[in-house]
Amino acid sequence: MPTCGHFRTPRPWEEGGMHYGHTTVLSATFLSDAEAVSRVLPAPLQLPAEPLVTVYGVMCRDVAWLAGKNYNIGAMDVACVFDGEVDRNVHGTYCVVMWENMTEPILGGRDHSGVAKIYATITDFQHKDDACSTAVSHFGHPIFDLSVSGLNTLDAAARAEIEAAKHDSVWMNLKHFPNVENDGADISYICTYPSSGTCPEAWEGTGSVQFHRSTFEQNPTQFDVINLLADLPILEMRTSRLVVFAPMKALDRRPKRLK
Amino acid sequence: MPTCGHFRTPRPWEEGGMHYGHTTVLSATFLSDAEAVSRVLPAPLQLPAEPLVTVYGVMCRDVAWLAGKNYNIGAMDVACVFDGEVDRNVHGTYCVVMWENMTEPILGGRDHSGVAKIYATITDFQHKDDACSTAVSHFGHPIFDLSVSGLNTLDAAARAEIEAAKHDSVWMNLKHFPNVENDGADISYICTYPSSGTCPEAWEGTGSVQFHRSTFEQNPTQFDVINLLADLPILEMRTSRLVVFAPMKALDRRPKRLK
Amino acid sequence: MPTCGHFRTPRPWEEGGMHYGHTTVLSATFLSDAEAVSRVLPAPLQLPAEPLVTVYGVMCRDVAWLAGKNYNIGAMDVACVFDGEVDRNVHGTYCVVMWENMTEPILGGRDHSGVAKIYATITDFQHKDDACSTAVSHFGHPIFDLSVSGLNTLDAAARAEIEAAKHDSVWMNLKHFPNVENDGADISYICTYPSSGTCPEAWEGTGSVQFHRSTFEQNPTQFDVINLLADLPILEMRTSRLVVFAPMKALDRRPKRLK
Amino acid sequence: MPTCGHFRTPRPWEEGGMHYGHTTVLSATFLSDAEAVSRVLPAPLQLPAEPLVTVYGVMCRDVAWLAGKNYNIGAMDVACVFDGEVDRNVHGTYCVVMWENMTEPILGGRDHSGVAKIYATITDFQHKDDACSTAVSHFGHPIFDLSVSGLNTLDAAARAEIEAAKHDSVWMNLKHFPNVENDGADISYICTYPSSGTCPEAWEGTGSVQFHRSTFEQNPTQFDVINLLADLPILEMRTSRLVVFAPMKALDRRPKRLK
Repeated sequence: MPTCGHFRTPRPWEEGGMHYGHTTVLSATFLSDAEAVSRVLPAPLQLPAEPLVTVYGVMCRDVAWLAGKNYNIGAMDVACVFDGEVDRNVHGTYCVVMWENMTEPILGGRDHSGVAKIYATITDFQHKDDACSTAVSHFGHPIFDLSVSGLNTLDAAARAEIEAAKHDSVWMNLKHFPNVENDGADISYICTYPSSGTCPEAWEGTGSVQFHRSTFEQNPTQFDVINLLADLPILEMRTSRLVVFAPMKALDRRPKRLK
Repeated sequence: MPTCGHFRTPRPWEEGGMHYGHTTVLSATFLSDAEAVSRVLPAPLQLPAEPLVTVYGVMCRDVAWLAGKNYNIGAMDVACVFDGEVDRNVHGTYCVVMWENMTEPILGGRDHSGVAKIYATITDFQHKDDACSTAVSHFGHPIFDLSVSGLNTLDAAARAEIEAAKHDSVWMNLKHFPNVENDGADISYICTYPSSGTCPEAWEGTGSVQFHRSTFEQNPTQFDVINLLADLPILEMRTSRLVVFAPMKALDRRPKRLK
Repeated sequence: MPTCGHFRTPRPWEEGGMHYGHTTVLSATFLSDAEAVSRVLPAPLQLPAEPLVTVYGVMCRDVAWLAGKNYNIGAMDVACVFDGEVDRNVHGTYCVVMWENMTEPILGGRDHSGVAKIYATITDFQHKDDACSTAVSHFGHPIFDLSVSGLNTLDAAARAEIEAAKHDSVWMNLKHFPNVENDGADISYICTYPSSGTCPEAWEGTGSVQFHRSTFEQNPTQFDVINLLADLPILEMRTSRLVVFAPMKALDRRPKRLK
Repeated sequence: MPTCGHFRTPRPWEEGGMHYGHTTVLSATFLSDAEAVSRVLPAPLQLPAEPLVTVYGVMCRDVAWLAGKNYNIGAMDVACVFDGEVDRNVHGTYCVVMWENMTEPILGGRDHSGVAKIYATITDFQHKDDACSTAVSHFGHPIFDLSVSGLNTLDAAARAEIEAAKHDSVWMNLKHFPNVENDGADISYICTYPSSGTCPEAWEGTGSVQFHRSTFEQNPTQFDVINLLADLPILEMRTSRLVVFAPMKALDRRPKRLK
């Protein structure tokens, strides 16, 4: 029986992870309002002391499971806490939505790991003077623009911290599929997605994020999530960076369902 | 909490189904070899007396849940029987794989109804003399070509039969999602997807199907399913048609899990 | 020697024109301001008594020279007069800019006929209630939205007038190519582009046009023309229609250079 | 009056050329048959002693006139001689055809410089082991695959030679536009297109080129040129390289019409 959209390797963590030869991450973190952020955070996840939001883009290059093909990401994570019966007080980030410009990683990420991936057009990073930017759009309408300017090189110590943070962070997703009658869920649980990377180059600067509100006519399946994100107040910009991971290893350790 | 890729209406069957203003279906059915077909049919589905395979394309136009946007389909169904403890000896067709040229219907169809949908480039139907054809490709490599030539108009009685067959047929999918550790399944069941349509125009002719073998380098996530389909021998062409449904109503009745 | 982007038939007018099996034209005409319109009208063309502007979209289907493939158009014409030494007081329309969503017709139209064609994403017409609309965008940024609502069917007499007007109208383009040193022009002349069509169906309604201003960063090669169009005041809406030509014959008569 | 598809800077050579922040060129040169090559070489160009053909791909990144956007190229050059009344015995290369995956550079290159540019889908370079490859396709059908394997780093002396060769080479195009009646040409002359670049990295290896024959149905406007290229015999592979130019300056000197 054919299985569509499957991993080449069913359990990549048994082989060191999925190899991404070169990824570049552009990210801007900001402090938002707790009540607004709580509207994008599903139960049982809770807000930590600071409602931090990170908007980011990723250029994935030399992707082994795609025979070396490329794709881009535009996404939003929020800081969160999972406090369950087995897994107590786990601090991490929850992926609210992840746009990708290729259906293949969307299907793999949704089916296996529950990542809330959907489709958009995502520009390769554009560089101008000391700034780097990307833009996400769909059906001819802008979704968000992300830019980090005044980029300054980070030294080896800072890059070592970035590598450690990537390795140790807990990236959480809600794997949720409704049942076929749509009166309940077939699956609904929080799970993790580990990854690691070597950071040969990184820069820090001043981030800027702009969401563009949308309508049903413009973007019929995404306007509601776009408008929820656009409603998040930006109270204070925090760390904003351009970071290279080469290579990056996705699912280099076993993911787990949090309980 | 945002839910991505969801139906506008959670239970379309409570509102008469999802409205497709105009759909056109180009299909070619052939008799194949039982052993070859059994390789694309998952348990617990069984082969009926005749191993019939249908390759088809659909142009979906004026799709209400997409604010009137359009998309195309290229797919394969095989005749099958579900014989369970509750649902006994149910004859219908199983959708082996469905390519679509837009990610939105792929996600909805997978998440809720378990349809094995993946992405491809699919041409609008091309008309030449008395033939109609479509072509499915991905990453610059052809997947299959479908053509029906010598098209003759079908009369009202034949069209009434087509409408009845569409309404009464049982279209089955395997809703299957692996668990996050990939050592078992979160979900795995056979479910139905009802639809109906009004047929104002239809033609019958001689069908022709050609699959193109693929490699990992050409189509890294689809080459195996493509090659399975390409291996199906075409022993005898059967009914081949061009059929308009306007409107078509998808999920006009409640889908169900077969047991 | 290969010639790229050439017509299959060098002189289509010797064979009855280029066959378009089915085209649908959505158009809205408005009265604008003479001074503003004069900024989009190149010498030696002159404004007629009324500065009329027509914004339109076309769905070209079953295009013979593209082996039956399809493409869409979004464009603007303005009423104009050519008053030369040989061709005196010729009334017609000038095509300010024509966006198309396929490079093939762009190249043919530019190279041979001097049409100011450039690339954009153009939606298939979307129908909702009694309205029909299309949208032109590029690089994820909207260019213009066009809609005609309150559509009422036109009778056979009106359709005969539409056919006559299409056959008899003089559609003018400025064929202009700079020389390789870019200090003058290799070619610069006004030429015509005849076409005809059979009109089996047509509707009239109330038109609506909205242009979206653009920047270099959003649309680096088109922002200036977009902003010129966005600057045209809409003083009064005039005839707005949805018209089918099936078939349409492009270049069914010999085009000519006006002198 | 709007001019569509124009250079931002009309005469880039007065400002140091058009800035391309980063370009990577993958190329394979082979010895072919004089008679076959003569079929892709227009008069008055002549073949040199050796009928050398170069097939290449280029990834253009950080393109200033596109506000930092990117595009890819796939093309073929052949060695040639222009021996005119003024310009005597000029050795260089003629660009037979250049596919690009964005319409903007196609229009600029055709209108101003006469480059025989047409549209295709062109993959970003894929790296595997010590090989680098790219693939050109259109409408779901492959046009050519290019690969260079066994890549070895070139030293500073070799890179200085590459820079000098790029600066000093004469790249020729036939700027040819038919007149509107298509019974003669509005323009038809050979012109040059200078460029320069800094080469920080380069590799040499073993090239491999495969053209895929095409039909009118598969690629209605390009099948004839594709088949002409596919007919060129590969008698002996010559220099094959992967070369980075960062930055590259296009039209850094005044182009000229050869006489």
